[in-house]
Amino acid sequence: MRSGYLFALLPIAALVSACSSTPSDSSSQRYTPSPSQAEMRQTSPAFAHYTQDVVLDDLWNRPGLNQRDRSIVTLSALIAQNQTIELPFHFRRALDNGVTPLELSELITHLAFYSGWANATSATAILNEVFDERGISNADTPAMPEQRLPLDEEAEQQRQNIVQETYGGVSPGVLHYTTDVLFLDLWLRPGLVPRDRSLVTVSALVATGQAEQVTFHLNRAMDNGLSKAQASEVLTQLAFYAGWPRVFSAMPVFKSVFEERGVLNQPANDAS
Amino acid sequence: MRSGYLFALLPIAALVSACSSTPSDSSSQRYTPSPSQAEMRQTSPAFAHYTQDVVLDDLWNRPGLNQRDRSIVTLSALIAQNQTIELPFHFRRALDNGVTPLELSELITHLAFYSGWANATSATAILNEVFDERGISNADTPAMPEQRLPLDEEAEQQRQNIVQETYGGVSPGVLHYTTDVLFLDLWLRPGLVPRDRSLVTVSALVATGQAEQVTFHLNRAMDNGLSKAQASEVLTQLAFYAGWPRVFSAMPVFKSVFEERGVLNQPANDAS
Amino acid sequence: MRSGYLFALLPIAALVSACSSTPSDSSSQRYTPSPSQAEMRQTSPAFAHYTQDVVLDDLWNRPGLNQRDRSIVTLSALIAQNQTIELPFHFRRALDNGVTPLELSELITHLAFYSGWANATSATAILNEVFDERGISNADTPAMPEQRLPLDEEAEQQRQNIVQETYGGVSPGVLHYTTDVLFLDLWLRPGLVPRDRSLVTVSALVATGQAEQVTFHLNRAMDNGLSKAQASEVLTQLAFYAGWPRVFSAMPVFKSVFEERGVLNQPANDAS
Repeated sequence: MRSGYLFALLPIAALVSACSSTPSDSSSQRYTPSPSQAEMRQTSPAFAHYTQDVVLDDLWNRPGLNQRDRSIVTLSALIAQNQTIELPFHFRRALDNGVTPLELSELITHLAFYSGWANATSATAILNEVFDERGISNADTPAMPEQRLPLDEEAEQQRQNIVQETYGGVSPGVLHYTTDVLFLDLWLRPGLVPRDRSLVTVSALVATGQAEQVTFHLNRAMDNGLSKAQASEVLTQLAFYAGWPRVFSAMPVFKSVFEERGVLNQPANDAS
Repeated sequence: MRSGYLFALLPIAALVSACSSTPSDSSSQRYTPSPSQAEMRQTSPAFAHYTQDVVLDDLWNRPGLNQRDRSIVTLSALIAQNQTIELPFHFRRALDNGVTPLELSELITHLAFYSGWANATSATAILNEVFDERGISNADTPAMPEQRLPLDEEAEQQRQNIVQETYGGVSPGVLHYTTDVLFLDLWLRPGLVPRDRSLVTVSALVATGQAEQVTFHLNRAMDNGLSKAQASEVLTQLAFYAGWPRVFSAMPVFKSVFEERGVLNQPANDAS
Repeated sequence: MRSGYLFALLPIAALVSACSSTPSDSSSQRYTPSPSQAEMRQTSPAFAHYTQDVVLDDLWNRPGLNQRDRSIVTLSALIAQNQTIELPFHFRRALDNGVTPLELSELITHLAFYSGWANATSATAILNEVFDERGISNADTPAMPEQRLPLDEEAEQQRQNIVQETYGGVSPGVLHYTTDVLFLDLWLRPGLVPRDRSLVTVSALVATGQAEQVTFHLNRAMDNGLSKAQASEVLTQLAFYAGWPRVFSAMPVFKSVFEERGVLNQPANDAS
């Protein structure tokens, strides 16, 4: 190993502990364990280097978006792409970064609707193991909240009118569930605030290459409190977790939304 | 648990039986088992609620598309997205809904060509385990059918001419296999009728975000007998299994096809 | 089984050896083993037939693109789509076809940036097992190369200017890493020549449905030495490993690039 190549031990060690923390019942694990630090250095020293020095030590510590939000963005990208191998590590990291167990439950449920049911099933199986490790449970949380967030009835009526006019003849079933289950139910659940639901949705859309759906949801995210500097860093985080091309395809859409809202020239708190 | 939150036991119990039915050789299972009902309720009571009350009890019982067709749409979406965790459950459900073992084999083979080879390899590994559970085998079925469905030679010649003129200089190899293996072979195999092959193809295209390829195949599906009411409900089913954004990106394409065929205002048998 | 349906044993037998070569520690395998030949013939004789007779015996032996390049294209498509089931087989095949262990490490690292971090993590876990089988290690290779390939400073300055002008206000973070980590670092690593990095990138873009990003990278690939005949066969290989619709969506982009470079009518060495 060349001198000058210093490999900080901690974060990958934490990743490794996924394997070693439950040695006796590893055969019942629901996920493929990530490669250990030694395995990564043996197989791809370059990938081990970028993972540690660029992603874990640099990207995650950038200003503009705090670590809790980076966890939400990263988990949304991983779940939406059904990339389970890093989920145990990032569920633990999210809990350490202050994402609550209930928020994780709501994030998964939100992505069932926004990225396909089975992705949420996979994520639930893995989160269940992470909760077991830590003695966490959401079992006492009601499946249906007693109270819901207030609805902006005018905006919702307008949305329904536009969608009904445009697609009423195409699929009444889709429109029925869009109204009754998504906008009058899911988005009003208090376990995850609307700004975070928007963060989850935008991250999933960029990660799965659905730039054409980003305009509506990025505007909604910024209406719900996401700043321009934060949105800018969401793209930086996603470049690594969804890949450069996905982010470059989303960039023109972010630019249009920033322009329309008059925030394009607002500083992005970049410290690079 | 709140009163009023009644959790119907059966369908999730069936899903759980995936794990418990072969306890002795669970280590040799080729798939990650779905979370059990208890695990889902512990980790994400909200997701457990929507899975049972909205998807299994409501969506699957809607009119407009029967349960056999819903199984074909769902399996196509899961396989095309390489979402293996729910495949054991949905292969069993498809058999229960009347999809034959040979049709499942043909569905997987069709998706090898329309969604990438490895997705079919994963699906075959899992279907093999489900067949073992039920004592089913396709081993006596010839790999190449003795007889093929009749070919519409004029339409096929027209397709070949257009594609040759447009892409003949780009990739002769692609065009060679498109003609010889897809349109003169795969689509003429009698094990899955053309209407069902179209249903598989359209479902896979919507689920993988390829709206630009839907026009040709949705027209072909409707030429092959898929009704407007059925196509409308395909979108409803896919909203859950491929995620809302994929369906909203496909909606304008479905609308154009319905308009061109003069069926946009035909009722969609919606009972919601 | 019909006469005339001859099932060549060897390639699928090699695939099966994934399971049998390490029977004692199969429980610690990081991947789902592919179905054996017997399992494929029991479950889907049709899929077994096309896998052997069309893909392994015919596609892989076509002229226009050698087997080493076909391995690079196939691995790029599988990793970019996170399709792990065929990775053990295709890592072994790539080594047999002359792709070096260091090239495999660089290919995975390149795809971390071009298809999302977790896909590279999954691939590393599996490649580690294949290396163990064969007693291979990259542990003596420095993570950061001592020397880098020469940079075309003028072209790079032009790229930076265009991107800064277009997206400087959108995400300074993305632009920072694009310059410092991608174009001044990753692309200049000598472990994988630029022509092969381009082959990896184009294959991943087509396989994940990002036709809009192909123009830049296909031009770069051809500047880096990929011939028109080779590019044409990349599409043929990807038709099987990414699915027909992905390739048909990429075809117009390939056509435009071929036209702009004046090579559209150049023969494609087609032997079909």
